[in-house]
Amino acid sequence: MSANLDRFHAVIPAGGVGSRLWPLSRATAPKFLHDVAGTGETLLRSTWLRLVPLCGEDRIMVVTGCAHADEVRRQLPELRDDGIVLETEGRDSSAAIGLAAAILERRSPGAVIGSFAADHLVHSDVRFRRAVREAVAAAEAGWIATIGIQPVEPSTAFGYIRAGSPLEVEGAPSARNVEAFVEKPKLATARRYLVSGEYLWNAGMFIARAATLLEVLAEHEPELAAGIAEIADAWDGPEREATVARVWPSLKKIAIDYTVAEPAAKEGRLAVIPGFFGWDDVGDFAAVSRVHLGAGDNDINVIGDPGRVVSTGSTGLVVSQTDRVVAVAGIPDVVVVDTPDALLVTTRAGAQDVKQLVEQLKESNHPEVL
Amino acid sequence: MSANLDRFHAVIPAGGVGSRLWPLSRATAPKFLHDVAGTGETLLRSTWLRLVPLCGEDRIMVVTGCAHADEVRRQLPELRDDGIVLETEGRDSSAAIGLAAAILERRSPGAVIGSFAADHLVHSDVRFRRAVREAVAAAEAGWIATIGIQPVEPSTAFGYIRAGSPLEVEGAPSARNVEAFVEKPKLATARRYLVSGEYLWNAGMFIARAATLLEVLAEHEPELAAGIAEIADAWDGPEREATVARVWPSLKKIAIDYTVAEPAAKEGRLAVIPGFFGWDDVGDFAAVSRVHLGAGDNDINVIGDPGRVVSTGSTGLVVSQTDRVVAVAGIPDVVVVDTPDALLVTTRAGAQDVKQLVEQLKESNHPEVL
Repeated sequence: MSANLDRFHAVIPAGGVGSRLWPLSRATAPKFLHDVAGTGETLLRSTWLRLVPLCGEDRIMVVTGCAHADEVRRQLPELRDDGIVLETEGRDSSAAIGLAAAILERRSPGAVIGSFAADHLVHSDVRFRRAVREAVAAAEAGWIATIGIQPVEPSTAFGYIRAGSPLEVEGAPSARNVEAFVEKPKLATARRYLVSGEYLWNAGMFIARAATLLEVLAEHEPELAAGIAEIADAWDGPEREATVARVWPSLKKIAIDYTVAEPAAKEGRLAVIPGFFGWDDVGDFAAVSRVHLGAGDNDINVIGDPGRVVSTGSTGLVVSQTDRVVAVAGIPDVVVVDTPDALLVTTRAGAQDVKQLVEQLKESNHPEVL
Repeated sequence: MSANLDRFHAVIPAGGVGSRLWPLSRATAPKFLHDVAGTGETLLRSTWLRLVPLCGEDRIMVVTGCAHADEVRRQLPELRDDGIVLETEGRDSSAAIGLAAAILERRSPGAVIGSFAADHLVHSDVRFRRAVREAVAAAEAGWIATIGIQPVEPSTAFGYIRAGSPLEVEGAPSARNVEAFVEKPKLATARRYLVSGEYLWNAGMFIARAATLLEVLAEHEPELAAGIAEIADAWDGPEREATVARVWPSLKKIAIDYTVAEPAAKEGRLAVIPGFFGWDDVGDFAAVSRVHLGAGDNDINVIGDPGRVVSTGSTGLVVSQTDRVVAVAGIPDVVVVDTPDALLVTTRAGAQDVKQLVEQLKESNHPEVL
């Protein structure tokens, strides 16, 4: 299996504003740059540390926006200069992961790549890596592999993967055929999925030979694939900047789920490795609160200095990024996010409405806090 | 009636921290110095403006702590130099009002004084002044008069005054005999009081000839009265500071309700004028919120710049003293008080627990925010 990992490169798409995590997550400093889970590491840094044992510091590529380059390099000082792909503008995941695949295939023909979002939380890194090793083995065997998360609740926030029959893949004993991707379900359907045991959450983790991934992409989005190839050809030469400036803005904005994963599933080329490692996309403050409830015994969990928080008759979460005293009385499941220029007050149940507040702020006189 | 008012002096005791209004109200800047009701005027200033038409700017005396002298003078630039009595330390209302009475009696023998707290809210100044005029007439006729507030709910937060038979006092047609003062009741009792129509709230408004008030005080607290007299004798001479330093700290700390009002009621010397002017002691954020609900149509009432507040699925009150954006989602009856060094998050129902938070903060590492 170690032979497999020698050709394995991790790609970390580091994008997405995470507007339901405003005001912690901002356009200028999105979710992945923050320690939203209060672990002591930012989500990007913990993603990096989770992957280093699999592919070393030299075979990790981060794809992120130009605006975040400095902070990404600050958080990942070990990142190689050629390990960062900077997007002049976001063109969605097909372009981002496709370009990384194309660059890596040119640099290391036969490379296997795995893409792992920069802003997810994993509890057991060891189990995560075991799943990735299986996925790499399946990729080496020609499959496009995904890691599907074993559901722990009937979530309506994620797309699902319907797992089919077990595959006989050496080094990937738990690999199963993917029958279909299904969109975010309604609650009743999600309950059925949970009970059936046949459905896994789609966490957007795709592992494949770079060449295979690009081949599927070219079959279904030939223009996009050609644009990516053109940029990749120029990437490690003097024409990079000019080619990016010319081609990148023209690339179709589309998620890789639609250009690679779903077509591959339909063609029977997609394998899934069930993941049992404790995963959370920490998509809103209810999730942040949930992640923290596991950790602390206190009524109020604090990200920041707990010495500056007092409460009575309250439970929940206080995120403190200022040196102010925060006092909470009589609100169960409260969520308070105290930052220098913006304050959010809600509850776990209200956390999903934060996106609405962000929309209001876009229309307000204070878009500068977004 | 105008003859009466020529001898009428208003005394404004401006003390009390109002800890249930923290972090708006602080030890260094208590409730009366703030526009807690969002009227555009501080409570002290609106008390002053309410009284000026009765006694002019020259016959109002403010009794407050030395620490607040500058801010009181800033808010009341018309206040005469000899119209402020500064307490080196708080000795409760018998000493505060007693000293004001003694000073005024020496300066203007035959003076009638009325004491009105600096931190209450009155809706109809016109009706308030009509009640005061009746009280002054009763005082001129020898009574110690109080203005009792017509209850609008079965409050357990106030002491009550049981009104007796109508008195025949010229210029005070609604004056009634006071049968008794009763302590803050339980809810069932308060409901009975409300229905009976015989009970009024004690708002601590006492109007009497200064000499009469001091006479009752001397009967029941001779040492305290003697101490007050000693200071008053020295007040307008060169020995003021030395006398205050020697005598003031020794004065008994006791509310005027116990030294004057209750004894006078027992002796049948107390008259009450029912007040129908819309009164609120704005004792906690539930009261602040209530006061504001009457004013605005918005889901969230804002004291501060409403342009910086966004909300969804929420009602209540935001007090904004910073230039931060405040965003609230999914909390009915929320109360958010955003100040530069402290943040309070609660609900109208939780407002009474703020005092508890203040107690916690006293024991914490951050008493500086109190």
